[in-house]
Amino acid sequence: MQLKSKDLLGLEGVSREEINLILDTTESFHEVSERSIKKVPTLRGRTIINFFHEPSTRTRISFEIAAKRLSADGVNFSKSGSSFSKGETLLDTVKNLEAMQADVIVMRHGIPGAPHFIAQHLDAAVINAGDGAHEHPTQALLDMFTIKRHLGKLDGITVVIVGDIAFSRVVRSNIYGLITMGARVILVGPPTLIPVDIEKMGVEISYKLDDVIDQADVIMILRIQLERQGKVCLPSLREYAKLYSLTPERMKQARPNAVVMHPGPINRGIEIDPKIADGDHSVILEQVSNGVAVRMALLFLFAGRKELTEKR
Amino acid sequence: MQLKSKDLLGLEGVSREEINLILDTTESFHEVSERSIKKVPTLRGRTIINFFHEPSTRTRISFEIAAKRLSADGVNFSKSGSSFSKGETLLDTVKNLEAMQADVIVMRHGIPGAPHFIAQHLDAAVINAGDGAHEHPTQALLDMFTIKRHLGKLDGITVVIVGDIAFSRVVRSNIYGLITMGARVILVGPPTLIPVDIEKMGVEISYKLDDVIDQADVIMILRIQLERQGKVCLPSLREYAKLYSLTPERMKQARPNAVVMHPGPINRGIEIDPKIADGDHSVILEQVSNGVAVRMALLFLFAGRKELTEKR
Amino acid sequence: MQLKSKDLLGLEGVSREEINLILDTTESFHEVSERSIKKVPTLRGRTIINFFHEPSTRTRISFEIAAKRLSADGVNFSKSGSSFSKGETLLDTVKNLEAMQADVIVMRHGIPGAPHFIAQHLDAAVINAGDGAHEHPTQALLDMFTIKRHLGKLDGITVVIVGDIAFSRVVRSNIYGLITMGARVILVGPPTLIPVDIEKMGVEISYKLDDVIDQADVIMILRIQLERQGKVCLPSLREYAKLYSLTPERMKQARPNAVVMHPGPINRGIEIDPKIADGDHSVILEQVSNGVAVRMALLFLFAGRKELTEKR
Repeated sequence: MQLKSKDLLGLEGVSREEINLILDTTESFHEVSERSIKKVPTLRGRTIINFFHEPSTRTRISFEIAAKRLSADGVNFSKSGSSFSKGETLLDTVKNLEAMQADVIVMRHGIPGAPHFIAQHLDAAVINAGDGAHEHPTQALLDMFTIKRHLGKLDGITVVIVGDIAFSRVVRSNIYGLITMGARVILVGPPTLIPVDIEKMGVEISYKLDDVIDQADVIMILRIQLERQGKVCLPSLREYAKLYSLTPERMKQARPNAVVMHPGPINRGIEIDPKIADGDHSVILEQVSNGVAVRMALLFLFAGRKELTEKR
Repeated sequence: MQLKSKDLLGLEGVSREEINLILDTTESFHEVSERSIKKVPTLRGRTIINFFHEPSTRTRISFEIAAKRLSADGVNFSKSGSSFSKGETLLDTVKNLEAMQADVIVMRHGIPGAPHFIAQHLDAAVINAGDGAHEHPTQALLDMFTIKRHLGKLDGITVVIVGDIAFSRVVRSNIYGLITMGARVILVGPPTLIPVDIEKMGVEISYKLDDVIDQADVIMILRIQLERQGKVCLPSLREYAKLYSLTPERMKQARPNAVVMHPGPINRGIEIDPKIADGDHSVILEQVSNGVAVRMALLFLFAGRKELTEKR
Repeated sequence: MQLKSKDLLGLEGVSREEINLILDTTESFHEVSERSIKKVPTLRGRTIINFFHEPSTRTRISFEIAAKRLSADGVNFSKSGSSFSKGETLLDTVKNLEAMQADVIVMRHGIPGAPHFIAQHLDAAVINAGDGAHEHPTQALLDMFTIKRHLGKLDGITVVIVGDIAFSRVVRSNIYGLITMGARVILVGPPTLIPVDIEKMGVEISYKLDDVIDQADVIMILRIQLERQGKVCLPSLREYAKLYSLTPERMKQARPNAVVMHPGPINRGIEIDPKIADGDHSVILEQVSNGVAVRMALLFLFAGRKELTEKR
């Protein structure tokens, strides 16, 4: 079993077998991060470039730590302090990075499709670390890994995703992945934040969290992007919170073993109540821990695809 | 012998035995930095996060080099280019870092008490790399290590600290440490820069450097923060220099083997004359060298406290 | 055979034997970057500081990757986020870095001569990574290495350098190096961009690329610094491109095996046509690859000069 593509650009089109391979590989790297000596020599002498065209805390550091725990050589490259100001094209910049024998380029970019564009022109593997509002496949994979650890499976479970569906790259990747794995996905949010025709992706839609919360095995709360509030699609925060915020009152309707997730960073008291974010149902920090393991697995699977599989 | 706290938040309340343990441990790591191959495998597979919420050159790089020489995996995290702009709370940010199995979080923060606050909520060790005008314990420890190497002891020596006492985190940590170790500490500066009631910390006060310079085994010059000059507490620079600048003329009154220190960065010609900063009495660059060794010792002592002591 | 200087500040005054030593050493490190495990233990435990006072993408990352592939401990230090804002002198900053037992300081600085100034005051080796419009010796060395791999020699070949001669540090270092190695150098550009008296460096001058292109074994295109356009010395871009841009039409006059180079970042469609930049004559990306190998060789030769040669 091997991944079909040299890149991980999104979960659209990634098969159930491939997702299972990634999740199973994650399992073995998860164990490494639990040790006191959190390091394996797996990717010694490989070069990983973290190319972050947009600011990021957890994703960038998660990839950086993943690379170090695999003994790879990682280089960070962000927009500030670079030659972007000199007007070089994106493709020329990454071609230059590849020419330094980069094995993997991890890319966060504000423009949807930017990683896909460069992947076509590179021999190096490209891992999409978030492209605009399009996809964020490593987040969805760590979400699925976390769900599987808690519920034992993905097939047949019900995942309720709440919030700003329209502008979330996290939700898009999760839909592709969860539907492929056989989960039932219900999207919940105000009509203005739910894209027309999204049912075609195989999901159900609800405009009231209270209507569906009792069916959820997983409640995935999305971040409200405050900077956008009041501009186009979002009602007042008070109105939003009234209908969609995950409060202790609302959680009483949920199943006793329902799992609460959030991709972070969280707005405490807006989309989620601190009591829930820090409560027994929450697996938010486990998501972060599992993120390192998922990225180790992905770097392992993509960095040395040819050589490593040949050696088996 | 073992440190009492899981964190190093300040030297307030740290015992003489603990300081001796740190200084003795530093001795052995100091030797490593003198080799041509400056590296030991001590902390292989440990994760150290340098969380610098304020700009810093020497402290950040000193910790970074210390981590590398111990073979630890270090990750830098500064305010710019992070999700701080997204309104996440400080505690959520560090909880996320801890969730990636960080062993130590080194924190520089503008707000006094910030490291103490997060340390309460984390299992990871927190090392305070400077919190506002409060404490800067690693600087005081490297100062004490440097003094001990030159004078052979701390007990019974006289340390004269000159300058902006009120706003210096360096001086506060040095007072706690030096008094605990049995030194006599004389603070010197204009009345506006000496906090009321500071004698209660066990120090003496003088408003004229010329009155006490002949008693000093150590003359520690603090940095005048020029950005504050003329605003609240500082007289004109000319007036300040006349009374407090360490000039060659003034040094003639000092003991022949008095040691001159400065935490850096120095303002040449303001609080210290270049001839003194670069002269025979000065140990300013040794302080910098010793800083790496002290931080290696601290990372060693705090990174793997449980496991390492169990293995003994 | 050993290098004469403890530093690489420029190629002015560097002998043919020394350049040959560097190029021969590069050959062996070039091979390392071609492996799947691109890592050797050569500089384990050495400390390399990348001190970039000006933004840079490829040079900084190239040095960073070179250091990692040699197993050295590298630390990045850029202007932003540092104590420069606190008014410390450049010399004090680098003296501090040296005090942390840095073996090599790689410096990019906007002021010509800055690396030379600090090198005089340090025991650590200083490698100039570009000082203003003065020199950029590592770029010239990677250019010469690339030429030699393609043409088999430097002696007797003709190199045509086109563009902004006056403000290019790349061209200055290349002239010193190429003339020393016995190459013929023809500078081409508008009169306003060619410094008076530059013939004294041993080069020829032409104001029309079409007049000399057929003599070139190597056509080295310089970057037009757009930010300067229309200000002092540069005619309109259209006029410039008409006479100096390397277009497919113009390339028809070149020798069939002529090699096209550019130090990057390129302005596609201005100084060079995309068809040429990506075409068969172009070795632009090989220059980038070879840059890592050259910098590995230089770090090797300068990092451990004393000890390594003693051990032979």
